[in-house]
Amino acid sequence: MQQQQQRLTLPTQGQGLYEFTEDARAFVDRSGVSSGLLTVFCRHTSASLLIQENADEQVQRDLMEFFRRIIPEDSPWIQHRAEGPDDMPAHIKSALTQSSLSIPIADGRMALGQWQGIYLFEHRSRRHSREVLMHVIGE
Amino acid sequence: MQQQQQRLTLPTQGQGLYEFTEDARAFVDRSGVSSGLLTVFCRHTSASLLIQENADEQVQRDLMEFFRRIIPEDSPWIQHRAEGPDDMPAHIKSALTQSSLSIPIADGRMALGQWQGIYLFEHRSRRHSREVLMHVIGE
Amino acid sequence: MQQQQQRLTLPTQGQGLYEFTEDARAFVDRSGVSSGLLTVFCRHTSASLLIQENADEQVQRDLMEFFRRIIPEDSPWIQHRAEGPDDMPAHIKSALTQSSLSIPIADGRMALGQWQGIYLFEHRSRRHSREVLMHVIGE
Repeated sequence: MQQQQQRLTLPTQGQGLYEFTEDARAFVDRSGVSSGLLTVFCRHTSASLLIQENADEQVQRDLMEFFRRIIPEDSPWIQHRAEGPDDMPAHIKSALTQSSLSIPIADGRMALGQWQGIYLFEHRSRRHSREVLMHVIGE
Repeated sequence: MQQQQQRLTLPTQGQGLYEFTEDARAFVDRSGVSSGLLTVFCRHTSASLLIQENADEQVQRDLMEFFRRIIPEDSPWIQHRAEGPDDMPAHIKSALTQSSLSIPIADGRMALGQWQGIYLFEHRSRRHSREVLMHVIGE
Repeated sequence: MQQQQQRLTLPTQGQGLYEFTEDARAFVDRSGVSSGLLTVFCRHTSASLLIQENADEQVQRDLMEFFRRIIPEDSPWIQHRAEGPDDMPAHIKSALTQSSLSIPIADGRMALGQWQGIYLFEHRSRRHSREVLMHVIGE
């Protein structure tokens, strides 16, 4: 049994989904782990992780629209506005999605389904540099 | 330290919660792992995983009703409708719940609480065959 | 490779976020694991886990307000009311957040970001004693 870790830096340009399935795949390849478990962890509270359909851009547009509607930036009851109108909705969207994902590895590959991609979900409007940690354990 | 994996195929007949706690328990039993970690992973973007109360059917009915209300199938702003009115809401419900669950194993058993059951949450209306991957590591 | 587990009992006094980052840190310290993976698991269906900003109390207040608004306790369509008006909303809030969290460990420390704290999210109004299981694997 062995394990490895890698830090991934993802630059973001505003709210949206940023796919990094290929980075995760390359990390698993390099690790040499044939059977095991990949964990992905997001080191932020205003960005999060999501496994979603990687084929259709409309899906991503509708997903963004849903999250905009469920917690509008101009919600009058929001008190925490020091860092701008997108800050508190960002924390809420992070709470509604994932900080960590766990994906089994079989035959040297992540056991993702055919349509599944791994995304960083950026909830802030300004440019950011986001850190994701990948950890693999197995043999 | 050892690890094992098993693929589970779950047939679904429309939207709802499909419990597979017993399948997970049987897998942990067969693995012989006494202390360790179970990971469950759903290989789909229109079905997801959930740990919920396994005692009361009303809880499941109300849970379904909540998700129907938070993202109605006839929401006029939804653009992605190629696969039917339940498709985009399915992706959103998946985003709001889990792709993976991690459950510690102690004394040869999943450390679930008294009322916790493990469910596949099917978000599509038609029949499907869903694949769940179980991975255990421990000793 | 080694692993360890610890059960943590967290007393709660009504709905809110209860931070236990220090308990997790102490557990990782005692385990002696320098590189590995921490898993935290909540053994309840009316309380859950959340990684959130640990600096600003307004963030927590707004987060609570969002969850109160998204599933009001007096929603007329709720059928499951046997255990009080906060019971079914508690199950729904649990479904929308996490049962388990996975956090990589590097250099003997959880790889949390600067503003990330680990919280038990209590959804019931009465006092409870909540059980969280921590599992670490690594070397």
